[in-house]
Amino acid sequence: MAKYSIGVDYGTLSGRAVLVDAKTGAELCDATYEYPHAVMDETLPSGKKLGTDWALQHPQDYLDVLHNTIPALLKQSGVDPRDIIGIGCDFTACTLIPVKKDGTPLCFLPEYENEPHAYIKLWKHHAAQDEANKLNAIAEARGEGWLKNYGGKISSEWAIPKIWQVLDEAPEIYAAADRFIESSDWIIWQLCGKETRNSCVAGYKEMWNKRAGYPSKDFFYALDPRLENVVEEKLGTEILPLGTKAGEITEEAAKLTGLCVGTAVAVGNVDAHVCLPAVGIDGPNQMLAIMGTSTCHITMGTKEKQVPGMCGVVEDGVMPGYFGYEAGQSCVGDHFAWFMDNCVPESYQQAAREEGISIFKYVGNLADKLKPGQSGLVALDWWNGNRSVLVDVDLTGMMLGMTLQTKPEEMYRALIEATAYGTREIVDNFKDNGVQVDTFFASGGIAQKDPMMMQIYADVLNLPIKIAGTAQGPALGSAIFGSVAAGEAKGGYDDIFTAARAMGKTKNLTYTPNPENVKVYDKLFKEYQILHDYFGRGANDVMKRLKAIKKEQMGE
Amino acid sequence: MAKYSIGVDYGTLSGRAVLVDAKTGAELCDATYEYPHAVMDETLPSGKKLGTDWALQHPQDYLDVLHNTIPALLKQSGVDPRDIIGIGCDFTACTLIPVKKDGTPLCFLPEYENEPHAYIKLWKHHAAQDEANKLNAIAEARGEGWLKNYGGKISSEWAIPKIWQVLDEAPEIYAAADRFIESSDWIIWQLCGKETRNSCVAGYKEMWNKRAGYPSKDFFYALDPRLENVVEEKLGTEILPLGTKAGEITEEAAKLTGLCVGTAVAVGNVDAHVCLPAVGIDGPNQMLAIMGTSTCHITMGTKEKQVPGMCGVVEDGVMPGYFGYEAGQSCVGDHFAWFMDNCVPESYQQAAREEGISIFKYVGNLADKLKPGQSGLVALDWWNGNRSVLVDVDLTGMMLGMTLQTKPEEMYRALIEATAYGTREIVDNFKDNGVQVDTFFASGGIAQKDPMMMQIYADVLNLPIKIAGTAQGPALGSAIFGSVAAGEAKGGYDDIFTAARAMGKTKNLTYTPNPENVKVYDKLFKEYQILHDYFGRGANDVMKRLKAIKKEQMGE
Repeated sequence: MAKYSIGVDYGTLSGRAVLVDAKTGAELCDATYEYPHAVMDETLPSGKKLGTDWALQHPQDYLDVLHNTIPALLKQSGVDPRDIIGIGCDFTACTLIPVKKDGTPLCFLPEYENEPHAYIKLWKHHAAQDEANKLNAIAEARGEGWLKNYGGKISSEWAIPKIWQVLDEAPEIYAAADRFIESSDWIIWQLCGKETRNSCVAGYKEMWNKRAGYPSKDFFYALDPRLENVVEEKLGTEILPLGTKAGEITEEAAKLTGLCVGTAVAVGNVDAHVCLPAVGIDGPNQMLAIMGTSTCHITMGTKEKQVPGMCGVVEDGVMPGYFGYEAGQSCVGDHFAWFMDNCVPESYQQAAREEGISIFKYVGNLADKLKPGQSGLVALDWWNGNRSVLVDVDLTGMMLGMTLQTKPEEMYRALIEATAYGTREIVDNFKDNGVQVDTFFASGGIAQKDPMMMQIYADVLNLPIKIAGTAQGPALGSAIFGSVAAGEAKGGYDDIFTAARAMGKTKNLTYTPNPENVKVYDKLFKEYQILHDYFGRGANDVMKRLKAIKKEQMGE
Repeated sequence: MAKYSIGVDYGTLSGRAVLVDAKTGAELCDATYEYPHAVMDETLPSGKKLGTDWALQHPQDYLDVLHNTIPALLKQSGVDPRDIIGIGCDFTACTLIPVKKDGTPLCFLPEYENEPHAYIKLWKHHAAQDEANKLNAIAEARGEGWLKNYGGKISSEWAIPKIWQVLDEAPEIYAAADRFIESSDWIIWQLCGKETRNSCVAGYKEMWNKRAGYPSKDFFYALDPRLENVVEEKLGTEILPLGTKAGEITEEAAKLTGLCVGTAVAVGNVDAHVCLPAVGIDGPNQMLAIMGTSTCHITMGTKEKQVPGMCGVVEDGVMPGYFGYEAGQSCVGDHFAWFMDNCVPESYQQAAREEGISIFKYVGNLADKLKPGQSGLVALDWWNGNRSVLVDVDLTGMMLGMTLQTKPEEMYRALIEATAYGTREIVDNFKDNGVQVDTFFASGGIAQKDPMMMQIYADVLNLPIKIAGTAQGPALGSAIFGSVAAGEAKGGYDDIFTAARAMGKTKNLTYTPNPENVKVYDKLFKEYQILHDYFGRGANDVMKRLKAIKKEQMGE
């Protein structure tokens, strides 16, 4: 009798559930539910105005995802709920929610429903930048060793700046919150009735370390005396590694979802990190790039290395027993969308319409005919700053080599190549710091849809690139963790490695480096590196000075 | 009784004549004649194919300009030819023609009419690059002092490379040519029946120096033994300063033009240099920028200074008694045309159509609303190499500071600003090398049509900019020289300075620097300078390496 597992992937605007064969990883069906409240970045449901850079979500939407998608899966597939052995969920992160001791979100309570700080702060809530800046300055001044585990800088998107913002601006909410918890852990709590915290978000977003724990009380006191005991009072010290069973479906959750009471529930996970088993990665030295509007690079190693400019290293952060490494590029698909919106002439749009293809496809076809180096262009892919390895949001874009003969498709290809060089910078940086990368996988929309781009990446990296076998990487990954929560005896797996090998999938398609192109891209990458270091490492801080002049002129 | 003068401006595609009041400089009427043969860059009239980078013209077209435009002026104005006291002509340069002793172009002779080298080599004939490269290498190796008068490098557009190409490729044509002469001097010969050579083309295009003469026979011998006596055999050693009378209209020329026999004819001139009196410039330290597809900067000084990166310094090269200095930017209007063709989205084109304005106007209006520095962008204006002060055709364009919020109008403004910084680089370079620039004039299409651009130039240069009073700057300038050829006794002037003050015109419009903008542009120019020197002076030759890779990939 076939057994099944469910994965639920909570994105920025919707949740998507997929029903998976626990033996093969085959996806039977999927269902999506868009959040009715979407991203609240201007007002609360009451109409109350939010500040600049705020981005909130509503926890009811997350529950409604479960209530809408899982019954839909059951109905579509006709699968007996008793054959569903486990469920896993992954989330954007850090997406943080203040709750009462029993898990009730503060914003569910009438007295707080008009209070912005009572809602979920979405990952892209950027209003805690002041707190992040102060935190970084204090941590650096104190020589906090854990800072190096995060490439030397904490993001304003992470948990402590967000919690500190609540304390700064709404101390009564801070006081009323018994817990600040990641939405991924909160949704698991709703499913199995038990508060758990997973090692991925704790490690990457809350500065927890398996061996050293959280930063010291001294450090938190230095931020603000009221934060001295924030870990014990508001977070939680028991952190479960990924691959652990959090609990089982409760009666209440069974009513919500249609699943059977007792179905295994995996600990929460993060949407990027959960993708690795979905492509069959089962150990160290295998990097996955999740390529969409931005790119997230994740790999595992057997030792803890402090790699400058990475986003983080977390033991058990991706799979238990290994050190998970994360890096990122903040502008990939966004980059190309900007170009198509702003830099492509009318004649190209007309030609694309005549051919009945998208402008991406039209310009891409022209770009695909170019040889490496033929455009004479090189660009720095910093239109949205640089996440790795420079960790500098104030860097900006650059392009060089234009002549009066330069065509739009050449500039487009130069932007693609720039993001490939950026990835190579990240891979080389890991290697140079003792984290080997032997094989390379790509998932996400770009990996699925853009063969030219993937070939350029293969040529620039001089690595074969394997492509994810599903467009639902996070949901499949969560389902794989669900089958591990169930265990082998129930028709699942006792460890994530076996599960990844069995259920993870790549396409029957590998982009193999073309040796002629590799030679040319090696030369071009050297040029990129010189410019990368010149503009990115302080030799010429022109980008920052221009930003400062711009701010001054805009009266900011 | 009013007296009149005629100026004829020979451009790349047509000749334009203007009839001018010799007292006031008022333009009564003008007439244009397009060259039937235009630019011959693919075939001769016979259909014979031309090589790559060739660009020829036909001397009959030049005669037809006289025959068509001057009678038209007489007819339109009703002016009695006896009241026309003088005529002047200016030309593109170096535009070189091989002729027999009597001035007959070789291409007029049946035996040579199918021989490309017998035709006129237009200024933009670029097929003598090999000869220019060899010439520069030999001159540098020999430490030829005159090289510094041309910023250290001779262009392939100039006379000796072009003559040398004839010798290399068609020695029989070289032998048959009694003279190689600038078209400007040739047309004057046709008008007054006498061979003259003017100091402007001799100085700027033929390496002649009023004090030192031409380069030595030794030098020419070093190029090719057959060139040892090229000056005596093929050019001419008597050079007349600008402002001189070349002669008087002959009977033949009177038949051709309808002018009276005996009308004064000025020595030939160059289309850029002739513009200075047309804006009333009458002495040193006043720079004129002639702004079109490219920009030419001309000013005068009282001493000979060797200014690195200028195009040339020539005594009597602009007005007699002064040292004329020339510099240039190879990509100005061309730059903006490239941008509009390649980088402006369909939505902007649609909006421009809806408003019923050109795309230049539409994007310009948006760019005009931006403050200096607001875009956060800075660019290097090297889309077509850099003529001054780096004298390097292998440099390419650069833009920096782009974000996902960057708009087309911001990039457009950054390109305009880049050309303004390029002009400031030229002005500063002159000043730093002892050639003062106190006042600044602009003529040409851009000066007439683009107030935003002129204000940006005023702010970047921190100099008031006076705008030429006519769109026919070269033709007016030639007419002014025509009135000087006639002399005061005939109703003209005895010197060009008096004539310039009387007949030169600026608009009643000066662009005055805005002190707030000047402050910001001072900061931005510093950034431009750092990048200019970094990419342009050898610290990072990435642009050249990219060009080399491009050539390799294109199999060139």
